[in-house]
Amino acid sequence: MSEIIEVKAGIEAENEKYAAEVRKLLRETHTRLINLMASPGAGKTSLLEQTIDRLKGAYRIAVLEADVDADVDAKRIEAHGAKALQIHTGGSCHMDAAMTLKALQSLNLNEYDLIFLENVGNLVCPAEFDTGADLKVMILSVPEGDDKPLKYPLMFQVTDCVLVNKIDTDEIFDFDLQKLEKNIAPLNEHAKIIPISAFTGSGVENWLVYLREKLMEWK
Amino acid sequence: MSEIIEVKAGIEAENEKYAAEVRKLLRETHTRLINLMASPGAGKTSLLEQTIDRLKGAYRIAVLEADVDADVDAKRIEAHGAKALQIHTGGSCHMDAAMTLKALQSLNLNEYDLIFLENVGNLVCPAEFDTGADLKVMILSVPEGDDKPLKYPLMFQVTDCVLVNKIDTDEIFDFDLQKLEKNIAPLNEHAKIIPISAFTGSGVENWLVYLREKLMEWK
Repeated sequence: MSEIIEVKAGIEAENEKYAAEVRKLLRETHTRLINLMASPGAGKTSLLEQTIDRLKGAYRIAVLEADVDADVDAKRIEAHGAKALQIHTGGSCHMDAAMTLKALQSLNLNEYDLIFLENVGNLVCPAEFDTGADLKVMILSVPEGDDKPLKYPLMFQVTDCVLVNKIDTDEIFDFDLQKLEKNIAPLNEHAKIIPISAFTGSGVENWLVYLREKLMEWK
Repeated sequence: MSEIIEVKAGIEAENEKYAAEVRKLLRETHTRLINLMASPGAGKTSLLEQTIDRLKGAYRIAVLEADVDADVDAKRIEAHGAKALQIHTGGSCHMDAAMTLKALQSLNLNEYDLIFLENVGNLVCPAEFDTGADLKVMILSVPEGDDKPLKYPLMFQVTDCVLVNKIDTDEIFDFDLQKLEKNIAPLNEHAKIIPISAFTGSGVENWLVYLREKLMEWK
């Protein structure tokens, strides 16, 4: 048991080293990286499609598509006119900083202003690994339920922003946004909570206002 | 890197040893164990509520509730009159066989016929660990999308049964059951696929027919 724990501590220290390298590379190339996390099917790719469509005139965007083993999302992103780089994690349930660094190094970062990392669909493991990103954004989708902060607290603790997707279905699923906010508050009082529907487009403009503000702050 | 891989191989061998012990314990006590896996919010607890309500006259049921850190599901299960044992995985994203064995040993298994393990909400990690269960059942919920086998293939490969939950919302989410079946077929030609709604109860009887057949086969 102690061996496993030591290895885990070693992995965390190693990860921090690579996260620092990611941050250095981003600063040098004036590029911003956003780590997008969610359960499978919460709407990460749909959100990116909406975001790219509305921002691509102002920012040069690339997407790192992290999947255990697939390339369906990369094809969807490229159809919207952004560069997509498919990353196969080889069975791993999350992206770590070393994988992120390697992916960023394979792009010419002078060609991009903004990179989205679409992490593996998972509410547990991606929360544990700093990728060196400037911003952590998570999506919780309405069908998953307003009680999820109680069950996956770390994800809600580490995120900067919670996008509450599929909000157009809140009545069907008896989803209570206020209950969700109440469940998030003790974990993270600073998290920005934005209800959206990546399907109808409702609320997406509020997300873009938040994102543009962040991009301005960072300049 | 080689150190990590060796540790992983060691963990797998260790897990198999405990899985064999779980199987031995189950045989000795004439108890059956079902490993229930799904994304967060796919409806694991709701399915168990429906299942317990309909089977509790015929079988003595207990539920192992595995969560990173919570006890909301255990309370829901106990309200339906089944024994619930809360397991905190301590940050771990899945149940392994050692954790399962420890949980089973803390119950008097002569008092139960059927144990459900409600695994951590996650489509990646639980697929990698044999818990020693007699049957692996996964839930895919309609809002997650019919393309999920392409993105989380291992889970669809290892499962015996795919319950397609929230089927009453298939039109809202433009979900195609035939497309799902087509995506599962190359991964697992034997998986039993059963559409259900744990909310309305539709299709739940088909799941119980399947489960009762398995329980008879095992006698």
